[in-house]
Amino acid sequence: MAANNNLQMFQFIKRDTRDFINIDPLQTAGLLTDAARDALIEWGDGYSVCDYCNGALDLVKKPPIQEFVYKALPEFLGTDTARVMNGARESKFAVMHSLASTAADKNNYVVMDAWAHYSSKVAAERAGLEIVQTEKPEKEIMPEDFLKAIETGIEKYGKKPLLTLLTYPDGSYGNLADVKKIAAISHEFDVPVLLNGAYAVGRMPVNAKEFGVDYIVGSGHKSMSACGPVGVLGVVGDEAAEQLFRKSAYNKVKEVELLGCTSRGAPIMTLMASFPEVVERTQPENWEKEVHLARGFIQKLEETGKFKLFGQNPHNHDLMFFEAAGFFNISEKAKRGRYFLYDELKDKKIHGIKPGLTKNFKMSTYGLGQEKLDFIADSFIDILKKYDEI
Amino acid sequence: MAANNNLQMFQFIKRDTRDFINIDPLQTAGLLTDAARDALIEWGDGYSVCDYCNGALDLVKKPPIQEFVYKALPEFLGTDTARVMNGARESKFAVMHSLASTAADKNNYVVMDAWAHYSSKVAAERAGLEIVQTEKPEKEIMPEDFLKAIETGIEKYGKKPLLTLLTYPDGSYGNLADVKKIAAISHEFDVPVLLNGAYAVGRMPVNAKEFGVDYIVGSGHKSMSACGPVGVLGVVGDEAAEQLFRKSAYNKVKEVELLGCTSRGAPIMTLMASFPEVVERTQPENWEKEVHLARGFIQKLEETGKFKLFGQNPHNHDLMFFEAAGFFNISEKAKRGRYFLYDELKDKKIHGIKPGLTKNFKMSTYGLGQEKLDFIADSFIDILKKYDEI
Repeated sequence: MAANNNLQMFQFIKRDTRDFINIDPLQTAGLLTDAARDALIEWGDGYSVCDYCNGALDLVKKPPIQEFVYKALPEFLGTDTARVMNGARESKFAVMHSLASTAADKNNYVVMDAWAHYSSKVAAERAGLEIVQTEKPEKEIMPEDFLKAIETGIEKYGKKPLLTLLTYPDGSYGNLADVKKIAAISHEFDVPVLLNGAYAVGRMPVNAKEFGVDYIVGSGHKSMSACGPVGVLGVVGDEAAEQLFRKSAYNKVKEVELLGCTSRGAPIMTLMASFPEVVERTQPENWEKEVHLARGFIQKLEETGKFKLFGQNPHNHDLMFFEAAGFFNISEKAKRGRYFLYDELKDKKIHGIKPGLTKNFKMSTYGLGQEKLDFIADSFIDILKKYDEI
Repeated sequence: MAANNNLQMFQFIKRDTRDFINIDPLQTAGLLTDAARDALIEWGDGYSVCDYCNGALDLVKKPPIQEFVYKALPEFLGTDTARVMNGARESKFAVMHSLASTAADKNNYVVMDAWAHYSSKVAAERAGLEIVQTEKPEKEIMPEDFLKAIETGIEKYGKKPLLTLLTYPDGSYGNLADVKKIAAISHEFDVPVLLNGAYAVGRMPVNAKEFGVDYIVGSGHKSMSACGPVGVLGVVGDEAAEQLFRKSAYNKVKEVELLGCTSRGAPIMTLMASFPEVVERTQPENWEKEVHLARGFIQKLEETGKFKLFGQNPHNHDLMFFEAAGFFNISEKAKRGRYFLYDELKDKKIHGIKPGLTKNFKMSTYGLGQEKLDFIADSFIDILKKYDEI
């Protein structure tokens, strides 16, 4: 390929949302801490963390990756074992692939909640597993829905599922299902439980052992103020960990499901650098403040009569889903149609509702604080007023 | 987990090798360009590249990821299709897993060169594939070695392999095998060829179609001046690409082997930011200069009579492997034993030879330039003089 000037389009690209208020649930808890930003610059070069490697990423002592992976992270997740992975989806795939590869027979399946993230489904698909989902509930997923789904699976496949997966909270409505009861139901069938905590781990208190789940996955870029792609995977019990983290027949320190090493670059250093602040923000009293702020924001919007919250109300998470009839009405008459809302919010330097959405949208209040949340609510109300919807 | 002061050990960790001359082959071509360093800071937050996503990472138009993945990258690799992945190993696994999952029967295998990287073996192992390697050659791997390995495999398994994998160059000696002949031999058996170009793509001119290979993988952090983990995967031919990048049954834009999206963070932005310079440095005349510098360095060491190069000589790559009897002799009498060399080099701010190695070590001259290479060679000679080995 010849070098040419056109290629300069890939350099020095500005991120024009960088100084916006970002309410996209993907982004609110991924903003780097100052320590992580320093780590990113210090460790940015290629494979930098491998400078002192003696064979496996998670055994690197300097920087203290081993201390992080073998002590701090399992304690944080409430598991016996943990690893840093390339993301939550890669963690889910590793668990499912490992279970599928070592299963006695083929044609296996996984039970998931109705609101499972697409990446949970794709992970199962890639691992050659079929999926039985709980029925879509009116409002929230109940333990009985899982019982039904497991029974449906047993009827269809003539055997129990390899795994039960619960999304906690789900990524659409921010509902928190009764994980303890769901785990107990699954265990009655002797089926291990994976908790997809991509929107929980790093935002709120979670503890795999207290919940009674066997695997827990989290997302560094979504909820732990780390540079993506990076995630965490925790396992309860030695037997499950030994199987999942089995060593290669070709190399005694390399783990097969991790392809040897996973997050071999700056992302793991940002995850570690943000970790003290992440631990602090997930203390119960700090999470309660976040929930309180989220509820205040919801109340302010509901009081206009123009916003309706879907899902659990009172709400228990920063991720929330609204029906906004007023915005929809405006979209039918505005010059730019359904893109009016995106434009109006852009003028106010608010980003995170997908262009074109008006009637239904999800958003997050995480880490924004009272002042910015007031500004966002007031901006919503101002837009309704501007188009005579209030 | 309670927040406590001990966790601060994970913050503000200095990388004391940052201002060293680094001769570790893992590191020499992974150093960020200025543009990549800017991109890292600009796009460091969590999932930042997803701010404008409408469903799939490689279709993001702003920043111009789609333009990069669908135009610039395939042209650079000499393929019809390309994707950005989490690394070279993840790319190899995706190809092998895809071939294994869609094979008509089970118990399949891959043929690899004797010097295949451990991650190629672990990728095969994870995909449930057995491995037949070429015999370890005296000096370099010849096309006939592949012919023999394929025939051995056919005899053992009663069928042809799913894939032939060539490491180009190998990661120990920096030898460049005759890829065109090896690809032709494999194709005589109707077996596709994967080129592991982790130390080639981004350092030297490579073109999958000119080589006649079907798949090519590269490493962003090893050889493309990108922040890890990130890699590239190119495919020749529409049929192979359709199979490898097959869409999910659950989501029409998400690709199963990519688990939907791969490098969803700053690493892909650093890969793109460095790309213009990477294209420039892989122009034949620039790579010739690198080879010339590497040969000059080798000559200077060989002239001392204390260093012997393994592998191809004259050498064709910046990655090289020496036997250094003089260093070994010193290690037998020095106070710190075999760690003396690491210490002496550290004093001279040279990093990259693993602590404890003296008799045999590999290193890379990539991108260092005449002045630093002279300094490294002179440092080696000075150390020999200091201990009366010259």
